[in-house]
Amino acid sequence: MVKCQILAKDGSNEGKDDGFYIRRCVELARKAIGCTSPNPMVGCVIVKDGKIVGEGFHPKAGQPHAEVFALRDAGDLAENATAYVSLEPCNHYGRTPPCTEALIKAKIRKVVIGMVDPNPIVASSGLDRLRDAGIDVTFGIEEELCKRLNEAYIHQMLTGKPFVTLRYSLSVNGHLLNQLGEGATECGGYYSKLLQEYDAIIVSSSFVDMFSIPTSQEPGAKQPLCVITVTARSSPIQIPSLAEDTASGIVVFAEKETTIRPETAQKGVETVVLDQVSLIEILEYCKLQGLCSVLLDLRGSLGELEGLFNDGIEHNMLQKVVVEVLPLWKESNGKSSLEGLNSVGRRLKLNNLQSRISNKSVVLEGYLEY
Amino acid sequence: MVKCQILAKDGSNEGKDDGFYIRRCVELARKAIGCTSPNPMVGCVIVKDGKIVGEGFHPKAGQPHAEVFALRDAGDLAENATAYVSLEPCNHYGRTPPCTEALIKAKIRKVVIGMVDPNPIVASSGLDRLRDAGIDVTFGIEEELCKRLNEAYIHQMLTGKPFVTLRYSLSVNGHLLNQLGEGATECGGYYSKLLQEYDAIIVSSSFVDMFSIPTSQEPGAKQPLCVITVTARSSPIQIPSLAEDTASGIVVFAEKETTIRPETAQKGVETVVLDQVSLIEILEYCKLQGLCSVLLDLRGSLGELEGLFNDGIEHNMLQKVVVEVLPLWKESNGKSSLEGLNSVGRRLKLNNLQSRISNKSVVLEGYLEY
Repeated sequence: MVKCQILAKDGSNEGKDDGFYIRRCVELARKAIGCTSPNPMVGCVIVKDGKIVGEGFHPKAGQPHAEVFALRDAGDLAENATAYVSLEPCNHYGRTPPCTEALIKAKIRKVVIGMVDPNPIVASSGLDRLRDAGIDVTFGIEEELCKRLNEAYIHQMLTGKPFVTLRYSLSVNGHLLNQLGEGATECGGYYSKLLQEYDAIIVSSSFVDMFSIPTSQEPGAKQPLCVITVTARSSPIQIPSLAEDTASGIVVFAEKETTIRPETAQKGVETVVLDQVSLIEILEYCKLQGLCSVLLDLRGSLGELEGLFNDGIEHNMLQKVVVEVLPLWKESNGKSSLEGLNSVGRRLKLNNLQSRISNKSVVLEGYLEY
Repeated sequence: MVKCQILAKDGSNEGKDDGFYIRRCVELARKAIGCTSPNPMVGCVIVKDGKIVGEGFHPKAGQPHAEVFALRDAGDLAENATAYVSLEPCNHYGRTPPCTEALIKAKIRKVVIGMVDPNPIVASSGLDRLRDAGIDVTFGIEEELCKRLNEAYIHQMLTGKPFVTLRYSLSVNGHLLNQLGEGATECGGYYSKLLQEYDAIIVSSSFVDMFSIPTSQEPGAKQPLCVITVTARSSPIQIPSLAEDTASGIVVFAEKETTIRPETAQKGVETVVLDQVSLIEILEYCKLQGLCSVLLDLRGSLGELEGLFNDGIEHNMLQKVVVEVLPLWKESNGKSSLEGLNSVGRRLKLNNLQSRISNKSVVLEGYLEY
């Protein structure tokens, strides 16, 4: 059954449109943004005679993989067709049977792969299995795009640790701000979209005192777990109720660090006692919960997150930086600069610094190089 | 004589392509970037039957205006044609005769104008003269683009003061840096292009000690006058020789403020004694020299420019901000933040904040709103 009649520019010239189809896979994969963790986002298209005859993506951990949906969509047309998939098909029995077998069974002639899976239990075995079955295999197409799509998953696979993004706002003259730009938290705003992408967000207790527990406004967004830190520097807090049913929160604190006992009677907010409220311990907790990506938001009373922040810089635990530069020239009060925070004193490079306009602000993104 | 056969999308549908032709005028005007001051940059195209039959731009103060070049280029084809011009044609005898008369004499049928000239001796009199002569006149086409093209000229016409742009570099974590990004000073780099656009650049004496006198590397660029400030906070300086023949520099200082007497034996570098080394006095000097646009570069030993910087913020003398964000996370040394500088303490908004990638850095631009 032909579902989608997107024509290749030249169906006859094999390989020429590989990039086009892999980009379509990435587009499909992103439909499940925020929903697949700890699994990666994957998209798949089946192409026959220059036409897309099947499409699919992995919607959620525990559900079938992208290849299965695309093969189902293609039906009998899959025979002798080319399968494009943004990530190497799995070759092991997890919660679902291996995709390699599904591709072989459907008599796919050729498989084009965006990137090899860094998961040690896949690691090229998918490629090998397909080749052994006589299928023509190509990989490394639009690789950077595919890597970016699953940057948190890849980091977690390679290091065993969650991927951590530091977010803060600056004025044009470089002062740390406790505010977001116009429209940032609304549906379509960069902050709302960011929340949708992450499994957890770490904020200080003063943050939740000043603002509410942050939730993404994207339609159907899976809300990140809100990790609220109570440290020696925190003031007594009253945890606000969760704005949405889908949101969840925890308050983390260490017995020895504070005598403050958070009021956590609110629905959905639990208390987690740690040995120490450090980034290492919080990430360890997240890992145990199967959370792969964490957003550290610096808003709130500044000193509160100093320990976590310094931990992050000192121990290479921050991978990405998202900076919103607001269209403001801020007066100086000598208190709210990142300078005050970064007592560790480390000079680092950022890779692939990019910028985009978000309403009246500019959002910068880059990757810390250690 | 038909010189350029750019076809309008639909020559028959009058007015439909006005934006297209005014954008072409702006493109032509920019060929003289940095060369026309104190005059504005202006471009003109003559269009007949949906074809461009003449093009011109104002190359330099004292030389003919854009309209004259475009009419010459069009020759007899100008009769009954439409003239597009990015700025209202002048109607007064300055160093050249009025362009309105040239357009009337050439029997132009219609004139489409980007923006009205803010110069009080033009101020709509060009429009009136053309209309009185029976020419159909439209104005306000791609007005924002035309305003941006001549932002310094417009500011100077409306306020009587030079247009001042503050430039500095920040690390991703908001620290002021004494360095530029990779390639910034090379031909095509944002800094080299910026220098080409400005009539003067103000730097501290420590700046010229650390770096050389900055020069644009753009082909044929007119170099800005380099204004080197010597203040009470300056160390004794040795003025470096000018890197290029086309560059010129002055050293400004006040007798009462410093006992340092700069060594200015170098070719092309003169000494100017002011009552006080303040931004007000320096801008007054620039104005007297017919300089309309000034770039204030914050590099060098930070405290040296503190007075000028605070002057600028306090007295609304800074119009534009250009910030280069380098792909660096800087260690803290407690000394080099803009925080230390801005002791005035003023909160301002920026309009039209934009960003672009320049090599590995991000360059932000915005306009201070007072």
